[in-house]
Amino acid sequence: MIYSVDMDYDKLALDLHKQHGGKITTKLRDQDQLDKTKLSAYYTPGVAAVSKAIAEDSSKLSEYTWTNNLVAVISDGSAVLGLGNIGPRGSMPVMEGKSLLFKHFAGIDSIPIILDVHTADEIVATVKAIAPSFGAINLEDIAAPLCFEIEDRLKEELPIPVFHDDQHGTAVVTLAGLINAAKITGRDLKESKFVVVGAGAAGTAIAKLLKLYGVGQILAVDSKGILSHSRGDLNEAKQLLLEHVDGSVDGDLADALNGADVFIGVSQPGLLTPELIKTMAKDPIVFAMANPTPEVMPDIAKAAGVAVMATGRSDFPNQVNNATAFPGIFRGALDNKVRMITDQHKIAAAEVIASLVENPSPDEIIPSVFDERLVPAIAKVII
Amino acid sequence: MIYSVDMDYDKLALDLHKQHGGKITTKLRDQDQLDKTKLSAYYTPGVAAVSKAIAEDSSKLSEYTWTNNLVAVISDGSAVLGLGNIGPRGSMPVMEGKSLLFKHFAGIDSIPIILDVHTADEIVATVKAIAPSFGAINLEDIAAPLCFEIEDRLKEELPIPVFHDDQHGTAVVTLAGLINAAKITGRDLKESKFVVVGAGAAGTAIAKLLKLYGVGQILAVDSKGILSHSRGDLNEAKQLLLEHVDGSVDGDLADALNGADVFIGVSQPGLLTPELIKTMAKDPIVFAMANPTPEVMPDIAKAAGVAVMATGRSDFPNQVNNATAFPGIFRGALDNKVRMITDQHKIAAAEVIASLVENPSPDEIIPSVFDERLVPAIAKVII
Repeated sequence: MIYSVDMDYDKLALDLHKQHGGKITTKLRDQDQLDKTKLSAYYTPGVAAVSKAIAEDSSKLSEYTWTNNLVAVISDGSAVLGLGNIGPRGSMPVMEGKSLLFKHFAGIDSIPIILDVHTADEIVATVKAIAPSFGAINLEDIAAPLCFEIEDRLKEELPIPVFHDDQHGTAVVTLAGLINAAKITGRDLKESKFVVVGAGAAGTAIAKLLKLYGVGQILAVDSKGILSHSRGDLNEAKQLLLEHVDGSVDGDLADALNGADVFIGVSQPGLLTPELIKTMAKDPIVFAMANPTPEVMPDIAKAAGVAVMATGRSDFPNQVNNATAFPGIFRGALDNKVRMITDQHKIAAAEVIASLVENPSPDEIIPSVFDERLVPAIAKVII
Repeated sequence: MIYSVDMDYDKLALDLHKQHGGKITTKLRDQDQLDKTKLSAYYTPGVAAVSKAIAEDSSKLSEYTWTNNLVAVISDGSAVLGLGNIGPRGSMPVMEGKSLLFKHFAGIDSIPIILDVHTADEIVATVKAIAPSFGAINLEDIAAPLCFEIEDRLKEELPIPVFHDDQHGTAVVTLAGLINAAKITGRDLKESKFVVVGAGAAGTAIAKLLKLYGVGQILAVDSKGILSHSRGDLNEAKQLLLEHVDGSVDGDLADALNGADVFIGVSQPGLLTPELIKTMAKDPIVFAMANPTPEVMPDIAKAAGVAVMATGRSDFPNQVNNATAFPGIFRGALDNKVRMITDQHKIAAAEVIASLVENPSPDEIIPSVFDERLVPAIAKVII
């Protein structure tokens, strides 16, 4: 049975969005009455002194303008949720929703910017052109492999943090969950065998972060089998993923899973069968993050012997939810004036997130997104 | 004596901007507690239904997202206040200030976007790329003559209102003031002689709107004299201005002013001397809008016989302040889903503004920006 959670929230979502006419709004920072004198300081003629000060020393931009607390959520709408390439306008509710999460969880001002251009050159040029307007940039729902090139170029060329959350947010929370899952199952991640299924932005970022963290073997699998150097049919996205995994092994999904300690799925519903699970190592770890329907449902996985299970869903235990990580990561980047969010930042964030679960158990390896310790604890290590 | 108002507000402006860390912030439209259910409607999984609805019918974008009430204030920082080309970062406090005015006067959500590109092609490409993010676009402080091409192209190519306020806001409020000044001095604007000094964005827009309104003769003047077809030294900006004025007359400023009914200055402090005023028609009208120091100070002008005087300053009567017009114009454009703000809209707005002064007198030809009737009255005619 394919269980869809969409039906539960469709009507509520449409109603709430229509009722409020969107999700965010602006207000004035100064809540006192704006009289003629204050307007003359916030606008002409007084504002000229502030403009002059910034023109003379651009580092004052964040001191005098809202950029100090402002993150743009930018998307071209080419890989929106599970909906695919629905274009910028269709992506707007998701981007505005992300801006809502920034405010709700981390008190960060955030605005959605949707792009009506779709090549790497155009997206990079546009984001660079508007970048002085913001304190940091959250790229969102841009399709692989374009997202890799876009993020790399922007990180290189802009003096503010640029973070593609679909990649790194997911990777950070996955690593956090794995650290605790390893404790529960008595594993050393550095000697464990991982199988990653899904060559999109998230799968690639997870494989990359796991490799940096120093785990044992990582195999990547697509519908035709294990990604390896002998495969001649790999598209650009998969060739990029191959750089971060063991490409010396050939075979199918069953070959890959044989004796594997960890399954990580960002792929298709129902892909992981009980029969396949039974060929994995004892007490395997399964992160089945396909949305909304996981690669295997938790009850089926448990029955087949899975020791620790995570999904992307809020109605099961252990949700791998980017909102666990990104609010704190950006809070730290803004507050600590970090120029670039590095791999070391991501690993430090994952370790902090894992550490907030005091007694990890199969049903609790990741803190709730509502855990108020998260944002300050993560922000502290983004330095 | 050149009187500078800057000194009065410099410290207050720097202090307030630093204390609040900027002028605007975001908040959530839904002020109820965001529980897990609401988050699942505003973000995944529920938001997917909203995204799908917009992807299928893009007209729903304004129904379900904050774009219905959102104006971007966009500048490349090439002609900021009286400061000139101080670049995008230096312009940010002014743009954020404009966003504050949008919220304060018209309840419109507005965000400043500063551009790190400076050619017409780059600016047009960037604004087009991000345009789906907004309900309307306010171009601000972009230098002439580039601003004309940029606005024309964007108006043509985008399905939302694009309005360069330095041009049209100033022109609308100027025309409103002139309508009442004409009443006071018993003039018919259609038979009056105008002298416009200043070939920037505002001067050109004023000349253009006056011509459309059907006034008598308009002469334009620069530091070398009257702009005419016989002049071989006109740059592109001045050639554009020449299209909207009587270019058949040669001479200097004194020749132009001889017998003129109306002086309109968007030029340099002190340019209009009492001697020149005395050569104008009886009971002349003087709009001396150079900022912060006018072409002639009101006391000097009055002593020389000026009947009605306006400036750009809030500390003298009759301030020609764009904030009189743009909040209502955008309020109307958003509420009435106007695709383009036309010349007819501008003239209608000017007439409405003028009509709100019930008994025009030399010291009251323009309503205060704090007049709460302004926004709804103007919005009603932007249809």
